Amino acid sequence: MLSKNGIKLIKSLSQKKFRDQEGLFTVEGEKMVAEALASDFEVVSVYRTSEIGEEAMSRITALSSPSPALAVVRIPAPEAFVPTAGELVLALDSLRDPGNLGTIIRLADWFGIRTVLASRDTVDIYNPKVVQATMGAIFRVRFIYCDLPETLSLCRAAGLPVYGTFLDGENIYGSALSADGVIVMGSESNGISPAVEALVDRRLYIPPYPASGTGSESLNVAIATAITCSEFRRR
Amino acid sequence: MLSKNGIKLIKSLSQKKFRDQEGLFTVEGEKMVAEALASDFEVVSVYRTSEIGEEAMSRITALSSPSPALAVVRIPAPEAFVPTAGELVLALDSLRDPGNLGTIIRLADWFGIRTVLASRDTVDIYNPKVVQATMGAIFRVRFIYCDLPETLSLCRAAGLPVYGTFLDGENIYGSALSADGVIVMGSESNGISPAVEALVDRRLYIPPYPASGTGSESLNVAIATAITCSEFRRR
Repeated sequence: MLSKNGIKLIKSLSQKKFRDQEGLFTVEGEKMVAEALASDFEVVSVYRTSEIGEEAMSRITALSSPSPALAVVRIPAPEAFVPTAGELVLALDSLRDPGNLGTIIRLADWFGIRTVLASRDTVDIYNPKVVQATMGAIFRVRFIYCDLPETLSLCRAAGLPVYGTFLDGENIYGSALSADGVIVMGSESNGISPAVEALVDRRLYIPPYPASGTGSESLNVAIATAITCSEFRRR
Repeated sequence: MLSKNGIKLIKSLSQKKFRDQEGLFTVEGEKMVAEALASDFEVVSVYRTSEIGEEAMSRITALSSPSPALAVVRIPAPEAFVPTAGELVLALDSLRDPGNLGTIIRLADWFGIRTVLASRDTVDIYNPKVVQATMGAIFRVRFIYCDLPETLSLCRAAGLPVYGTFLDGENIYGSALSADGVIVMGSESNGISPAVEALVDRRLYIPPYPASGTGSESLNVAIATAITCSEFRRR
């Protein structure tokens, strides 16, 4: 049912090098596999424990405890991004944590953000930890790796304001926010890079409570993204 | 500097059974160790790679890549919770994911929530993954395991309204929210349990965008907690 070489190939897809080489990635879990099949993505093959057995599944899974279903899916061809007036876009600057990226794609989907841009050094979206953390949102959100400063310049030229969060920004709760624009989120350790910061039109800030701050110095990037998106969408 | 038995003891603290038995847990990283030393927690010992060497550090760390400092800290004695009018409290019902719990403690600290209650089957707060994800907030937020239905009854008797998020709740963005109360968050897979749900006074809902919803069916629990706390604190 599944040859030694087949097992080796699927197992290798947990590494970026082999995902890039084969143009394939894996999704796991009955729900995720069903979402892959219902999406525009090309599902190359599906394996179920009921067919291949637990031993084979334990050898191809990228998870610590294998699920009953795994699909091998083709990585879609990269898309070009053309900024469109009226659209709210998310842009990620050097995000490194797979869990954070997956969570952000899931919440972008929740908040009707159809396009997520990312700098080329952002963690790979087809990393199994990212894929699983999206809970299927990976099949609905358009994710584009790009030269971020260059793409943000295009956005500004198209009339989309660029927003970013900074410690010296204006209080987001009291800010007038446009319905469209680009929300830039920085990396876990370094925030927004200088080249990207230079292109930000509106500096925002999520204030702690009380405003003087007596606790944590920062929020997790996925949490800050959620609060920012919530503020844009609730208005 | 560090005996075989010492190494064995510290290493064992990555398991709940031994943390409970010894009444100790570990924190790692220079910043976390400094926060532990500056806190009310009792730091039993501190180990630095510069003193014990890389080999010994690699044997006591609970992280995949060891940091240059590790502290062994005493688990504080359990506190009793007495509900106080005017206080905003968070309550976690069967939360299972260490990363989610750590992120929630960090954001509670950001939003000035000083007390977090949790059902007894919630993941252990002294799990190294939880500790590290709090980014030091574990030393500032009071975390209390309790019988959740019983404690929520006490809160209501003290005049604190109990809030929870549900798919059939009222739109949180348009809701009048009190300055004090208890915000209950449910587990990753099952939401709020029936026994706890019975004690909820106000059912809230974070609507997707567009409101009809065309994307993900739910938000990660840490993300939902962040948006809910943000809504309470921005008013």
